[in-house]
Amino acid sequence: MEDKSILTRTVRKYGNGAFFDEVDEVAAEFPLTVHLNGEEWATMVCSPSNLEELVVGFLASEGIIRRFSEITRLSIDQDKGFAYVQIDKLPEDRARNTSKRFIGSCCGKSRQFYFTNDMLTAKTVTANTELTALMAIHHMQELQEHSQDFHRTGGMHNAAICSTTGIIQCYQDIGRHNALDKLYGYCLMNHIPVRDKVIAFSGRISSEVLLKISKMGIAILLSKSAPTNLALELADDLGITAVGFIRGDRMNIYTHPERITGTELHI
Amino acid sequence: MEDKSILTRTVRKYGNGAFFDEVDEVAAEFPLTVHLNGEEWATMVCSPSNLEELVVGFLASEGIIRRFSEITRLSIDQDKGFAYVQIDKLPEDRARNTSKRFIGSCCGKSRQFYFTNDMLTAKTVTANTELTALMAIHHMQELQEHSQDFHRTGGMHNAAICSTTGIIQCYQDIGRHNALDKLYGYCLMNHIPVRDKVIAFSGRISSEVLLKISKMGIAILLSKSAPTNLALELADDLGITAVGFIRGDRMNIYTHPERITGTELHI
Repeated sequence: MEDKSILTRTVRKYGNGAFFDEVDEVAAEFPLTVHLNGEEWATMVCSPSNLEELVVGFLASEGIIRRFSEITRLSIDQDKGFAYVQIDKLPEDRARNTSKRFIGSCCGKSRQFYFTNDMLTAKTVTANTELTALMAIHHMQELQEHSQDFHRTGGMHNAAICSTTGIIQCYQDIGRHNALDKLYGYCLMNHIPVRDKVIAFSGRISSEVLLKISKMGIAILLSKSAPTNLALELADDLGITAVGFIRGDRMNIYTHPERITGTELHI
Repeated sequence: MEDKSILTRTVRKYGNGAFFDEVDEVAAEFPLTVHLNGEEWATMVCSPSNLEELVVGFLASEGIIRRFSEITRLSIDQDKGFAYVQIDKLPEDRARNTSKRFIGSCCGKSRQFYFTNDMLTAKTVTANTELTALMAIHHMQELQEHSQDFHRTGGMHNAAICSTTGIIQCYQDIGRHNALDKLYGYCLMNHIPVRDKVIAFSGRISSEVLLKISKMGIAILLSKSAPTNLALELADDLGITAVGFIRGDRMNIYTHPERITGTELHI
């Protein structure tokens, strides 16, 4: 399918005290409605590229599937913005409860979750992946080099799955969650084990982002941006190393810092 | 209520080749579940400040209310993260259809809408507000000066409602839509006419942002960031002047440029 993630239009610009017209690039925003076993299930707004990976990753992230093989049919009508998915065993409770507020007990892990569905699909990550600080910086630099679309339009997020030596696959999307879902879908579709992998990400570390990382089973999340406190509480609980503000040769290791190694510790 | 939008925690930092621990500020992420006439209606994730304005603006933006006086009771339990709203006349069709995909005709305005609810609440803006390019730059500079929280945590969006001479009110939130809903709620609660006002905004101009602007009835949206093509198509159709990438003394006027005046036109 043709990549229509970036479109052009004529823009009235102002600079040096004068107006002028110029053709410029703008990020596409594309509504994709997923029909699951014949029923409208969800509409996401995304960049229209790698839509199969996106749908597969989103279904896994929402707990509808665990393996790619559970999908018996997947077709995408890009002109109309529809995806049609057929799966054999639809876990009805999950399809229904997605956006219901979860009211947990007052203590322990559950208080951090606010949607029932996340309670069912988030998992504690036990992988003992390690990464040197210098490698974390290298991954982020490599992600930046892959981020041409952001620099062209100013409106895209980037996410890459990395081995300890470099980027395996990278996706862009106007929605930061979508970029992660595309990665998740890619890993499921290509049977790529994730326990020893790391994700490098351009966007903010929100609780939703952190939960997606935990559902994938990834132990180390590297980000250029800031985290929220709720994401960090979840990262603490779920065993994930959350690293933010990786800029130049600096970074903040917010949770489970034991996985970032390789330099003497001075306090 | 105490503002708990920014929290502190000890962070393991890496810089100049060494690790060290330092106390740093992190943006709070707060789930707020709205109960409408006794039923769970929606959960939003927000910064825990100005929650009344947020709830009022969100209800208006979703087409549940048009005036603040339609709310007969509004109470917020900040400890538990619940808002309780009572309104006399609940428009049942709107409460129900919020997230259903709208399948419109193939031509004309409707093709841009993808949720039924937006079809019902978005409106064409006819205000003939005008603003000079220099004033647009001034508004954005003033917004930046109000953006202390973003600079402290790197994770907040800012939105301000401005008259032709300066900022009237400014809100921060980790969610860019929430910052706009807080403004909308503020205007409704304080009977502030918006036809002659302008919004200055730190975030990206997505279709959702553009729709909120149209629902408020604002004619000019100023942003530091990039737009998407879908937002610009909606802005074209709905009569909104969308200005992006306002940085230094430059800007891009994407739609309805006739409202930005004051300098000779060179093409």
